[in-house]
Parts: sequence; C-alpha cells; structure tokens
Amino acid sequence: MDLIPDEVDTAIIATPASTVVEIMESCARKGVKAAIVVSSGFSEEGNKRLEQEIVKIAKRAGIRVIGPNTTGVLNTANNFITTFVPIENLRRGNVALVAQTGMFLGAMLRSIASSQHFGVSKVVGLGNKCDVDDWEALEYLAQDPETALIGMYIEGIKDGRGFLEVSQRVTKEKPVLILKSGITEVGSKVVLSHTGSLSGKDEVFDAACKQAGIIRVRSLEELIDLTKAFAFQPLPRGNRVAVVSFTGAGGVIATDACAENGLAVARISRETEKRLRRVTPKWHRILNPVDLWPAVEASGTIEACNTAIKAIVEDEGVDEVIVILAVFKGMVLPCDLDILKEKRHLDKPLLFCIIGDKDYAELMTGVLERRGFPVYPYITRAVKASAAMHRYSAQRKRLCLLF
Amino acid sequence: MDLIPDEVDTAIIATPASTVVEIMESCARKGVKAAIVVSSGFSEEGNKRLEQEIVKIAKRAGIRVIGPNTTGVLNTANNFITTFVPIENLRRGNVALVAQTGMFLGAMLRSIASSQHFGVSKVVGLGNKCDVDDWEALEYLAQDPETALIGMYIEGIKDGRGFLEVSQRVTKEKPVLILKSGITEVGSKVVLSHTGSLSGKDEVFDAACKQAGIIRVRSLEELIDLTKAFAFQPLPRGNRVAVVSFTGAGGVIATDACAENGLAVARISRETEKRLRRVTPKWHRILNPVDLWPAVEASGTIEACNTAIKAIVEDEGVDEVIVILAVFKGMVLPCDLDILKEKRHLDKPLLFCIIGDKDYAELMTGVLERRGFPVYPYITRAVKASAAMHRYSAQRKRLCLLF
Repeated sequence: MDLIPDEVDTAIIATPASTVVEIMESCARKGVKAAIVVSSGFSEEGNKRLEQEIVKIAKRAGIRVIGPNTTGVLNTANNFITTFVPIENLRRGNVALVAQTGMFLGAMLRSIASSQHFGVSKVVGLGNKCDVDDWEALEYLAQDPETALIGMYIEGIKDGRGFLEVSQRVTKEKPVLILKSGITEVGSKVVLSHTGSLSGKDEVFDAACKQAGIIRVRSLEELIDLTKAFAFQPLPRGNRVAVVSFTGAGGVIATDACAENGLAVARISRETEKRLRRVTPKWHRILNPVDLWPAVEASGTIEACNTAIKAIVEDEGVDEVIVILAVFKGMVLPCDLDILKEKRHLDKPLLFCIIGDKDYAELMTGVLERRGFPVYPYITRAVKASAAMHRYSAQRKRLCLLF
Repeated sequence: MDLIPDEVDTAIIATPASTVVEIMESCARKGVKAAIVVSSGFSEEGNKRLEQEIVKIAKRAGIRVIGPNTTGVLNTANNFITTFVPIENLRRGNVALVAQTGMFLGAMLRSIASSQHFGVSKVVGLGNKCDVDDWEALEYLAQDPETALIGMYIEGIKDGRGFLEVSQRVTKEKPVLILKSGITEVGSKVVLSHTGSLSGKDEVFDAACKQAGIIRVRSLEELIDLTKAFAFQPLPRGNRVAVVSFTGAGGVIATDACAENGLAVARISRETEKRLRRVTPKWHRILNPVDLWPAVEASGTIEACNTAIKAIVEDEGVDEVIVILAVFKGMVLPCDLDILKEKRHLDKPLLFCIIGDKDYAELMTGVLERRGFPVYPYITRAVKASAAMHRYSAQRKRLCLLF
C-alpha cells in the first residue's frame, strides 16, 4: 500500500486472515476511506479478537469496513465489482440485494443472472458486519435512484433500533423483502459459526418486521418470486383478483390459494361477460375463475387469450389478474398478445403461471418476463406473489397515514 | 358400435354430450365391459340428469364407467392410452397418478415427461366420478406390482367411508400423496362448476388423511417434490439429518428448515470427523452442517465431495443426508462421485439441492436424478421432502402396529 503513488479510495483485502491487520494499518497510513475485507477466519471461526483489531484501526483512521468474510459489493451502473464469484450477464435493473454471506450470495447472483429476467442495481455482501451494518446499507439504497426495491438475506441484526428506525422510513417508499435465517434454536447456533452473529429471538424480529412494514419471506424461492413481481409490476389498488385459466383445476387451486392468502375473487362485470361471450361457446358458463379452454377450442388460442385477458384487465372491479396457461408441444403459443404490446397502459398487476412442456413453458416465460410480466411455474406461487403485492400496498397506505 | 363384428372390451367415448346416452345404449347391447367418457357437458355444467342417464344404463348393463369429463387412463406397461393430450416421452416407472381433472392432468403429465426423471406406471383421470370412484382406483393400484407410490389430485370425495377404509390399508404398503383443492368456501364453489363435486369440510378431510396415514400436500410443487423423493430413495430409519453444504448460509437455512419440520441435526461421529479432516484445512471447524467450501478449496471439488459425502452417508448416527451444491460456470462438476456408482448399497435417503448457474445446475440435476438421487433447486424444498419421508416412515411403523 505504501508503494502506491496515487490516492486510494477503497482497499479490497483478500489475503489470509493473519495478514489483514498489517494491511489495515497501511491503509490507515495511506488515508484510505473504505475497505472491503473478503478474507475469512475471523469471528465466524471464533477469532473475535482479530476482528476487533481491524475495527479499532478502522475507527481510529476513519475507514469504513465492509466484511470481513464477504464477497463485497457490486454496482451494475459503473461495473464496480469486488466479488470473486464470476457475475457476468447480470442484468442492470431496479433490484438491490443485501446479504450477510459470501458464497451463498455468489450462488444466488449466478442463479439470478442465468435464470431470471429482472435486473439488479446494487449488491452488498455484508459478511460479519464488523463495521458497516445492514441498516446503513438500507439507508444508502433508500436514496439510490437506481433502486426500486430491496431484497435482503440476514443471519443476525446487530443494531435492532437502528434497523427498525431506518426500515420504517424506507418501506414507505420502497418494498423491503427479508429472508432471515437462524430463526430456530439450532439454526441460530449454526449462524454463530457462519457469520459470528447472534441471531436473536424470532418473535422479536417478526414483530419488528410487522411494525416496520417489512415483507418477511420464508425461503429463497419466495424471495425471488416476490422480487420479480415487485420489480416488474405496479401495485394493486385492492384485493379483488380475477383468474383466467386454461384448466378448470387451475381455477380451483388458484381460488383456494386466494382465499388462504387474503385475496378476494372479483365479481366480473356484465360488460366483461359480454366481451368474453364473443369467444366462448354458448353452453359454457362464464364465471371468475374464467375457464378459458372452451374459448380456446372455439376461437383459437390467440383470439381467446387476446379477448379474455384484455376484457378482464379492463374490468374496473378487478385489482389484480392471474393468467394460467397450459402449453403443449405443437400448440400455438400466445406470444404476440395485444396486452403485451400495451404494457405501459396497464395500471394493475398482471401475473402468469405456465404449466406443461418444459421447453415451451420456458420459451413463453422468456417472452413474457422480457416484457415485464412475472411468470411462475406453479399456481400457488403466482397467487402468493399477488397477495404480497396487495399486503404491501395496503400496509404502505396505512404507514403513510401513521407517520 | 352395432356394426363392429368382434367383441369390444372398452369403449372410449369422446363425442358431444348429447350423443353419449345413445352410444352407451349401443355399448350395453354389444356387451361392452368398460367405458371411458371423455366428453364434458354433464354435472360440471349443471346437466346432472344427463349424467344419471349414463349411470342408469351402465348399472343395468354391468358397464364400469370412468368419467365423464376426463382424459381417461394410461398404462406405460402396455402403452394403452386414451388421453387427447400428447404424452410421448413419459418414462415408465413406479409412480401412479390419479386426478379428478382432464386438461390439468394433461398439463401435469407433459410437465413431468419433459422436466422430471421419475417414471410413471399408471395414470387415471377420474373426471366427474359418476361410477368408478377414487377408492376403486386406489384399490387397483395397491395391488399393481408396477406401482410403488400413488399421487392424487382430488376435488371432492364421494364415498368417504370407502376412501378411508381402502387408503388405511394401502398406506401400510405404499405412500399415498394427496393434493386436494376446493378446501376453502369459495374454492369449493368453483369445484362444483369444474367436476360437479361436493368438496366437503376441509377439517374432516384432514382428520381422515391423518387417520389413514395419507400424506397431504398443499401444492402441485410439493406433490412433485415429495413424489420424486419417494420414487427414488429408501425410507429413513429415523429423523437425524446430516447436511453437507458448499455455502455456510445453506447450512443455516437447512438447519432452520429441519427444526421447523421435525428433523434433528445429527451429531457426527469421531470417525467421520477424522475422515473429513483428511480433505479439510486444519483451521476449519468440522460440524454438522458441514461447510464443505474450505475442503473444496483445499482438496478440489471431486476429492472433497467424494470423501465428505461418503463419510457422512456411512455414519451410523445419520438417518438422512442432504447435500447442497453451488455450481458456477467454469467449475468442475462432481459428476462422477463414488457414491453415485454405489447407489445400490445406500440404505438411507440422499437428497441434493443445487443452486447457481442454470445450465450447470440442470446438467448436474440430470446426472444425479438419472442415477436416482432427487435434486431440488431450493434448500427448504429438499428439507421438506426429507421430512415427509421421515414422517411417513414413522407413521407406517405405528400403523402396522395398530391394524
């Protein structure tokens, strides 16, 4: 460090743990402002004192430290990357991710880059959080114009009050989704040997999330499912859902899931019924959920989808729309739906579920998600995403009135 | 029908509803033994009387009827197929599927054929169940030597007592997994217009499942997840799980999920610790969950995986093993694990979770599942499948003692 002639803003330290203190000292001499300590072997391996050494040097010299035991940060706007995991092809977008882990965050990012269609603004790997804490990351992301929502993976909260205060402010503007682990007694013991955190009582964390308007998710799957709904779609005004399904059973399963997740089945208007009647055979009863298969057989896939989805989306008694498609080899895929071209005019969430042949489902998923419509492989997951959007929307209205 | 010179065993009727009665009468004259009525437009559209006409003819003439409003049956052993949905490439295997639906079953089968590696023995689409009931399908499958487990999608139970009696017997031999819809008040109304069933009180159904040892699942995703665990793996003797993970966070998440689903984290033996020590650097603490990344960095992916997984599987204090792999572009995939070759010698369930690059994850998933090891894209789903295997195994022991 002492040999570098120019000024240094940020040091990325990825050397064995035993050498980090010396490097931090040279950073202090050099006037470095920030350090990202990738190295592991600190409090997560029982070496608390070594970590405290780093903090002491940092405080004295005014260096902010991210880590140790982290892959660091990533900014898709200027391609600043400190992670050792290859992350090419990560789309630029409106989702910020914060995680208290290294490898797992890397695997998550590779999974998102290779299988999801939403884009990422910033990524922060917090590691052991010896200095920069989760609420500070949150505070930064709240004012970041590139970020519309924040997804977090957390093992333990160090400063509960700070976290609660900041997130209460942030969630009024941007959804914050949190996956927390170490929620069981055995789990919290494992956390100690992973990031050296105390994970705390789960009931306390849960109550804090409710108070702060944080959306708590229970799995990585749910985190990704909800993230893509919030990243792509506008918030709903209410909880009245319409379901358009290629299969009758799909309508039943969606209805159950709606009822179990606080959503109401919308009553479709006379006008909508009339519009649907144009594509559906006379003998078929038009109800919500709309069983679209008779219309597909009578009027063809494209005509049936175009007419039905448009009519349902435009119904003023409907707040959210879920379309369940079944796709088979040899079938005409509704890739050129009118509604896909009119995306900008939609003022309510439109989510899809696609079941059937893998290749066809993936093809159609790509078409829809590239146009900003989230797609789920299972019905209940689409419904849960819809329900989360409604809950956040209703909650935000309340929070904005309260504070 | 009257013009056919030879005998007819089974008639498949797929004509408009209004013509079915006449065809059934000609079946009766001809001495047909079974009819599969694909046609819809009966009780599910409010035409109860038309359906009763069919039943009357059938009872008088001794014809057993499947349907109406169904895609019928499928037998992979002799390629007897009545469904209108194309089902080529469906693997022959030990899983029987029974569903009270047409299109949805077709979509499910296409999804299974194109994305799953387990095989199917028989498929029964029950439709409106005007004659052949779910318990009769269950009774047939119980004695079918090609079937090792039964997965069902049900909207309503007609003969509760028959169903309970038969399933109590069947679950002692073969796992029965049931996804039931129409479980909410609004959902059960939609069922009426789909298969014309009364779906009943959910609490009653739930109690019946518990009494009969049926595994109740809450989504199609869970049905498929559990099915592949039961189809591929032996039952565990107890609930002590070992987790081997490429990421620390993976171990934490798995531990939480184990605790939440009634599984215990196994204490690994001294002997196992010694064997793991051979591949892991000295500074790393060996615990369960096993954080394998230090070993991967020190000894390479193949060596680390071979040694660790084998040691863990052979530990007598471990009843089930979950391996969490993170796979990245450019990394050596552990495709030739010793344990894959020794499959026949494993006497406990070994499940995998793979996160990371989609292409690599799918490649590795294919390798593992073709050898009979179920793979999940999310950790919690692998744990839930392990937990279901343990619950069934424990329950079966109790049921076998009771009856």
